[in-house]
Amino acid sequence: MTSQIFTPDVQQVLDLIGIFVFALSGGLLAVRKNLDIFGIAVLAEVTALGGGVFRDLVIGAVPPAAFQNMGYFFTPLVATLVVFFLHPEVQRINGTIQLLDAAGLGLFCVTGTAKAHDYGLGSVADIALGMLTAVGGGVARDLLAHELPSLLRWDRALYAVPALVGAGMVAVLIWLNALDGVTGTLAALVAFTLRMLALRYDWRAPRAWHRGSSSSGGESG
Amino acid sequence: MTSQIFTPDVQQVLDLIGIFVFALSGGLLAVRKNLDIFGIAVLAEVTALGGGVFRDLVIGAVPPAAFQNMGYFFTPLVATLVVFFLHPEVQRINGTIQLLDAAGLGLFCVTGTAKAHDYGLGSVADIALGMLTAVGGGVARDLLAHELPSLLRWDRALYAVPALVGAGMVAVLIWLNALDGVTGTLAALVAFTLRMLALRYDWRAPRAWHRGSSSSGGESG
Amino acid sequence: MTSQIFTPDVQQVLDLIGIFVFALSGGLLAVRKNLDIFGIAVLAEVTALGGGVFRDLVIGAVPPAAFQNMGYFFTPLVATLVVFFLHPEVQRINGTIQLLDAAGLGLFCVTGTAKAHDYGLGSVADIALGMLTAVGGGVARDLLAHELPSLLRWDRALYAVPALVGAGMVAVLIWLNALDGVTGTLAALVAFTLRMLALRYDWRAPRAWHRGSSSSGGESG
Repeated sequence: MTSQIFTPDVQQVLDLIGIFVFALSGGLLAVRKNLDIFGIAVLAEVTALGGGVFRDLVIGAVPPAAFQNMGYFFTPLVATLVVFFLHPEVQRINGTIQLLDAAGLGLFCVTGTAKAHDYGLGSVADIALGMLTAVGGGVARDLLAHELPSLLRWDRALYAVPALVGAGMVAVLIWLNALDGVTGTLAALVAFTLRMLALRYDWRAPRAWHRGSSSSGGESG
Repeated sequence: MTSQIFTPDVQQVLDLIGIFVFALSGGLLAVRKNLDIFGIAVLAEVTALGGGVFRDLVIGAVPPAAFQNMGYFFTPLVATLVVFFLHPEVQRINGTIQLLDAAGLGLFCVTGTAKAHDYGLGSVADIALGMLTAVGGGVARDLLAHELPSLLRWDRALYAVPALVGAGMVAVLIWLNALDGVTGTLAALVAFTLRMLALRYDWRAPRAWHRGSSSSGGESG
Repeated sequence: MTSQIFTPDVQQVLDLIGIFVFALSGGLLAVRKNLDIFGIAVLAEVTALGGGVFRDLVIGAVPPAAFQNMGYFFTPLVATLVVFFLHPEVQRINGTIQLLDAAGLGLFCVTGTAKAHDYGLGSVADIALGMLTAVGGGVARDLLAHELPSLLRWDRALYAVPALVGAGMVAVLIWLNALDGVTGTLAALVAFTLRMLALRYDWRAPRAWHRGSSSSGGESG
């Protein structure tokens, strides 16, 4: 059982913080799309839990944790109420949200990778699922909100790459038999820091080579 | 085995009616989107079976019922032919379709909740999956048809809330050990009635508070 | 074990060719949508592996083959690099790509049907899953790229019907206890040939009857 990097209580608190922040980002998109309170709740739940549900279906951990842990289910509803009543205030602290979202990204790529390993997958699949745990909810959020996934847009700062690095570090730590609370936290911090630097300096991934100059400024979907 | 609320024969007939009506709604959207007969069949199948397939994947009931029961699979194809040849007539009886769709909503939220319970999930997860069984197919339909899910639009009458109430009643009935054909039908009727009232009086859910007046009439996605 | 139509080595080579070509089609769409290299990789992976992952989740073969076979995972990354550096050249050989894509379609509908049968599903479900294996990745690609699925557009040549015919042939061959390397290849060739003919002669499926003349030339989504 390597997925218990932290004590169960610490893990639960960290999970709930990550879920809450991801849910806020889903709820805020729902407000921008002019959805009602039910739509806010749906996007909050999907953003917070989607990545983990997909991971659990792939590794065969059914029912997924999101359907077994009451806290996982109710936390996005709390975020829904916060967004519903206080969304201008929530948007005003957008920098704080991005910081917490980066923390959630770091945490979920680490715990996702470790959980995939517990179910006997190989290192490459562990890394892929760790990254999917961290970014899958955001993709599901954008699909439901009828938008091109933010993850895929070239004009957004790197999001998946920090998660990939964090997941890769965990896979190496597992291989070295060195994954514990300290090293796991370190991997999450690396992913978190990379994401914050990407935001700060607007790091982007390159687009395909040889594009004609006329199309380079064009539509991004 | 609480999911056998009705006798197997009655259950099968009710399921097929619900599947047929949901398939009609999928097929009609395909016609509105100018899709060909194959697209009509795809949206009919997805609308009718999508919610149940998702529920079965989550609770670990694989292969999902939709892939084991020939009637579940062929009924949407019959609806496809009806829509293909008679879509103006089908659209003309739109009130009847909405009534049958509300009946399908009531039925599926009840049987979905009971099936989730059979697989050992807790009450909250039962309710969530009962609602997802009822509304999931419609969401999949809208995603494939490249539209903002009707479920999330603030300018549509309540759809998920009636399913939520029906699923909640079933969870309470299970907890009271009082779920049978009579009480199960009652829960389905409550969901059905709420949906019909929502349509009749155009009940909607509220949008987030504090919206500036300039944006309140704006785009809904 | 009927899914081993070919020897494991032959099967693996054929699978990797199909995956590579599907990944190219995903990568090219990503370039058209102006996505960055990460978006190219995501669409390449999803197009190549999406259909098989869905099939494996439905039949309960978890973790899906795509998460167990390193070659399945890395081949789309090779296609990503090819598209990234050489996309004008790749687009110039579009006819070759379509030919290879038709070959992938033929191959995947055959092996998908056989694998579903191995997991004890009935003939109808086998055929449905064989077709879904072949076309599912393309649907997932279009959903992520925020487009109406090419599969559903009436103005595109038949794509799913050739896969359906190939899958149906395999189901008959299994029923006759006559599925082997020769007959399986024949079924794949039939699907391949139908797809090439559909492209050559622009075969399309009919749209719903009785459409008013004013709307017949209209929007296709």
